[in-house]
Amino acid sequence: MVVNRDAPRRSMAGRALALLGVFDTAHPRLKLTELARRADLPLATVHRLAGELVSWGALERDADGYFSIGLRLWEAATLAPVAGRLREIALPFMQDLYETTRENIHLAVHDGFDALYVEKLSGHRSVPVISRIGARLPMHATGVGKALLARADPEFVRRYLARPLPRVTRYTITERARLARELRATAERGYALTNEEMTLGSCSVAVAIPADGYEPAGALGIVVHSVRTDLHRLVPDLRAAAEGIARRLEAAHRAVHVT
Amino acid sequence: MVVNRDAPRRSMAGRALALLGVFDTAHPRLKLTELARRADLPLATVHRLAGELVSWGALERDADGYFSIGLRLWEAATLAPVAGRLREIALPFMQDLYETTRENIHLAVHDGFDALYVEKLSGHRSVPVISRIGARLPMHATGVGKALLARADPEFVRRYLARPLPRVTRYTITERARLARELRATAERGYALTNEEMTLGSCSVAVAIPADGYEPAGALGIVVHSVRTDLHRLVPDLRAAAEGIARRLEAAHRAVHVT
Repeated sequence: MVVNRDAPRRSMAGRALALLGVFDTAHPRLKLTELARRADLPLATVHRLAGELVSWGALERDADGYFSIGLRLWEAATLAPVAGRLREIALPFMQDLYETTRENIHLAVHDGFDALYVEKLSGHRSVPVISRIGARLPMHATGVGKALLARADPEFVRRYLARPLPRVTRYTITERARLARELRATAERGYALTNEEMTLGSCSVAVAIPADGYEPAGALGIVVHSVRTDLHRLVPDLRAAAEGIARRLEAAHRAVHVT
Repeated sequence: MVVNRDAPRRSMAGRALALLGVFDTAHPRLKLTELARRADLPLATVHRLAGELVSWGALERDADGYFSIGLRLWEAATLAPVAGRLREIALPFMQDLYETTRENIHLAVHDGFDALYVEKLSGHRSVPVISRIGARLPMHATGVGKALLARADPEFVRRYLARPLPRVTRYTITERARLARELRATAERGYALTNEEMTLGSCSVAVAIPADGYEPAGALGIVVHSVRTDLHRLVPDLRAAAEGIARRLEAAHRAVHVT
């Protein structure tokens, strides 16, 4: 781990946030010493701050002495626009898609250079996928990510392509020129396709949710077993759902900005 | 608003948390002055803290100058045990229930004296309900709440009954003795029923998720139009789902505590 030389200059609020930021999917539970090491803060500071965070409910401490994100922080986070407005509006449309397909239905936004998964519906018969709510996956390897990239600001796409494109499977598109062509094709046909680019054995179809402004609010995708070759058949329903979500988002936006 | 006389003694981390705590369902977006008033902190302090919170991603500021909960805080919160483990395990079972009913499917835990809604599935044809993810509703007026109360520690129930029982509709059980009888009946038959006790026009059936320990991990409920009189018919599926969730939770618990 890289030592953060700015640590001593961090404010107390900044240190408290740093403690919240050290949890990740691989480390949802941490001991006090691991908190201190990962946040690069003295143990005594972490001890005091963790106590404050626990008493507010930003962290919780289980019977084994492990800390995890607390219920009150989770509750506050349900008020984030992405979780509240976007997810709440999208969910019934996602349910309709789930009912007709019984497959994984994804809702993602882009944050930085990642596709950030905001909602995922899946049943017992859906193909296993690595996405989870709150997960970040590379945009160029996922259906929702390619749908978002294909509609993104050209300057953003230029910066995306200028970075290394990590290979996730042997089918991930990692050549810059090929990805640029793929994004143009995606924009032209109006939906993105992936074929084992993120997970071997699964493929996906996704569309951007049309937004008022230039960038899409998010993207909606369906992930299925790659042996199924009827992805195109799913496009009309997917598109209707994305348009339905866009209409409701626009109505909600107007309601907020008028009142 | 009650003036908080402890405010000047709050630490900087405590003040930062106070800013996160002032958002609620009715106020998911707040101006800087509202943040200051609701957190009972000086404007200059709030200005500086809000800047720190925005730069970390705990808050975000929109084009109109309103603050809301930020994407990075939402992302960290997806790692809370209630959102990660419980929701992730329960979701496919909830989907099965949704598929067979097309109604609102709820997953709730109890926190303090409230039923806290962790997940909700609903489609376009489900009866409109006031629950949302992150919402708190009174335990005695909801199916999931009564299912949780019926299995709760007797001392907890005693304290619950000692408090005033708010009336939500004219059918809410607000008499202490009647609620105690209702909870005994719920425990005996193994599932909770409500009939327009939370929302006129809707009724619900719910079961507690059996847990290792004494208290249930959560409760699973279905909310339907009250004109339907076939709630009992839903019980076997509901119970099978709750037992399936309990088995997976136990397996996940063992996996975490062995490794």
